[in-house]
Amino acid sequence: MTQIPSLQNLPRTSALLCLEVERFCLRQLGLTRGSHLVVAISGGADSTALALILSLLAPRLDLHLSALSINHGLRPEAEDDASHAQAVCHALGIQCSVRKADVKGFAAKHHMGEEEAGRSIRYSLLEKERLTQHAHFIALGHHREDLSEDVLLRLIRGAGWPSLGGMPARDDKRHLLRPLLTCCPDDLKQLLMQCELSWHEDASNQSTQYRRNRLRLQVLPLLRAENPALDRSMGHMWQLAGMDRDYWEKLLNDALLAHPWQEIKQEQKECPATGKSILLPRSLLRALHPAARLRLYMRAVQHLCAGGLPSADAATSALPQPAPSSQGRASTLLALDEALMQGRGNSRFQLPGGFEAYLKGGAITFSQPVS
Amino acid sequence: MTQIPSLQNLPRTSALLCLEVERFCLRQLGLTRGSHLVVAISGGADSTALALILSLLAPRLDLHLSALSINHGLRPEAEDDASHAQAVCHALGIQCSVRKADVKGFAAKHHMGEEEAGRSIRYSLLEKERLTQHAHFIALGHHREDLSEDVLLRLIRGAGWPSLGGMPARDDKRHLLRPLLTCCPDDLKQLLMQCELSWHEDASNQSTQYRRNRLRLQVLPLLRAENPALDRSMGHMWQLAGMDRDYWEKLLNDALLAHPWQEIKQEQKECPATGKSILLPRSLLRALHPAARLRLYMRAVQHLCAGGLPSADAATSALPQPAPSSQGRASTLLALDEALMQGRGNSRFQLPGGFEAYLKGGAITFSQPVS
Repeated sequence: MTQIPSLQNLPRTSALLCLEVERFCLRQLGLTRGSHLVVAISGGADSTALALILSLLAPRLDLHLSALSINHGLRPEAEDDASHAQAVCHALGIQCSVRKADVKGFAAKHHMGEEEAGRSIRYSLLEKERLTQHAHFIALGHHREDLSEDVLLRLIRGAGWPSLGGMPARDDKRHLLRPLLTCCPDDLKQLLMQCELSWHEDASNQSTQYRRNRLRLQVLPLLRAENPALDRSMGHMWQLAGMDRDYWEKLLNDALLAHPWQEIKQEQKECPATGKSILLPRSLLRALHPAARLRLYMRAVQHLCAGGLPSADAATSALPQPAPSSQGRASTLLALDEALMQGRGNSRFQLPGGFEAYLKGGAITFSQPVS
Repeated sequence: MTQIPSLQNLPRTSALLCLEVERFCLRQLGLTRGSHLVVAISGGADSTALALILSLLAPRLDLHLSALSINHGLRPEAEDDASHAQAVCHALGIQCSVRKADVKGFAAKHHMGEEEAGRSIRYSLLEKERLTQHAHFIALGHHREDLSEDVLLRLIRGAGWPSLGGMPARDDKRHLLRPLLTCCPDDLKQLLMQCELSWHEDASNQSTQYRRNRLRLQVLPLLRAENPALDRSMGHMWQLAGMDRDYWEKLLNDALLAHPWQEIKQEQKECPATGKSILLPRSLLRALHPAARLRLYMRAVQHLCAGGLPSADAATSALPQPAPSSQGRASTLLALDEALMQGRGNSRFQLPGGFEAYLKGGAITFSQPVS
């Protein structure tokens, strides 16, 4: 590996790219000086560029960096990728660990697809590394074309708004930062070439076995043919969604301060497990517009999810469980709200993931499934 | 044409479909008994089904129906389509007028594409017919797959939320109703077959010359392969968007009651035309969350648009002008809001369509282009 140029010695366009990421980190991510980040590095272009840019910004932002490369063991070249990632990190002066993940075994054990299992283990190992290193955040290399893919994935799954706007750049619950989320991937590759840093192309990115790849390879090119500025457009949508996320969070926080929900732990007589419930009082529901009520229902369900469905594997329990699929949930919550408006009593609504909503006397109780 | 069965004599599934449309008209569209509607009928399946269903519901809802068929003169079979539409309306007991539209001439004169010109003349002729007939609304045959196309079109154009959720089912400014917006088109065709009503397939629907067709023929099948319930999912998204539209409208109405904007008519000394401006006072802008401010900017621009850009043709002036493309607008409004937050003064921002925003002393003035 060659000597990495400093920010001052980079060509102008690449230096500007780094400064844009710095601005994004300070303004949008609220990154504070002295932060310690674990960089998730696969050896691909995006994460290599992430490690490079953060190492160039580290002296300016007083960042403390370490890195983790995960060998998923799914491809014959996985060991090479991990060695390459370590070599890059060495050149950048970042200490890099490597962990092996048994994706196939995990997928078989938990009856999930390899794509989902891979993601689950990946985030779990990254979180473990963050805790071991006493780091504040995990830094991920997602860029604006990943964001467009994510918007389409969410559209297909039937996500609501602002979730439809795409993945957040900062996720405090999961300790994730995405410093490159508004960057164009071609600019990242150009930077790598200018710094003479190589990367490994992941052949599985071309496989149409995975939905994300099918969207990237088949659908997005058709949409970009209609609007060449599609990714920039989606970036603006993402920004507007972020404002709305903040708005609704604050509105619900204020409403819950005035009319708190009640968390109830139900002791099960026949069964040692305890199920948790959240009761939304009549006064709270009456104080809110339907647009706010629907989001309150979502928050209650997500709170029950995050509160910890019993996990089958300690490796995944370090992270909050994802909320159950939005597919089918919107329709049930809309039906629930209509029943509330009609003043119906004693009605039960089954939500995906085994959750239940019980409407009685103008109040609604959401309950966790009891395993 | 055969005798049309009554609602009571229809097979159960088709009778239920009609009753669902009735429910949708009463609950979602707020259609009042005694309304007079002009049905836009092309002779295709969707508008034929619309005429049929409305004629079946007319006695129950005390509807007064008339119809208009527009011959766009673009296809050799256009005259046949219009005659067929008239025959269908005759069988349904609906009086149907036919108007000819010179789409090619209009497109050439106004330097627009045939798709846009066709839409512009169509809505203009429908609105003229509505006024002639003293009707309350124009009824359009859009169904839930049209809604999915519309969502994609809006995603490509870079629409914000709730606009991204798709076309409204009721548009009071343009006097439009879409009673079939949650219906599945296959169900509509089945109903037509059960009533032995034929329809004409529009060959131009298969042409990939138009963006809408490319999305329908090339993109939506790929998305439906990922989620066969995609259209239902988008229907829920549309419903949630409607709630949000209502929420933001009320919120801005309340804010504008407390801190009204000022409309200013600027007399131009050198030029006989007058340009209109809207001043958003500092007190109003300070009272709002960024999510609400962005929507206030949009409302100001739309108000200036609707206030009547001078129209080159009387045929299009009956309808409010569409707001300028959202492409490029979101980024400018985001930059404007950032400048406001930073307390910048004396800054001008150019918006698509020739509109301008001028920031000074914490207030913002939006101005119409002067022709």
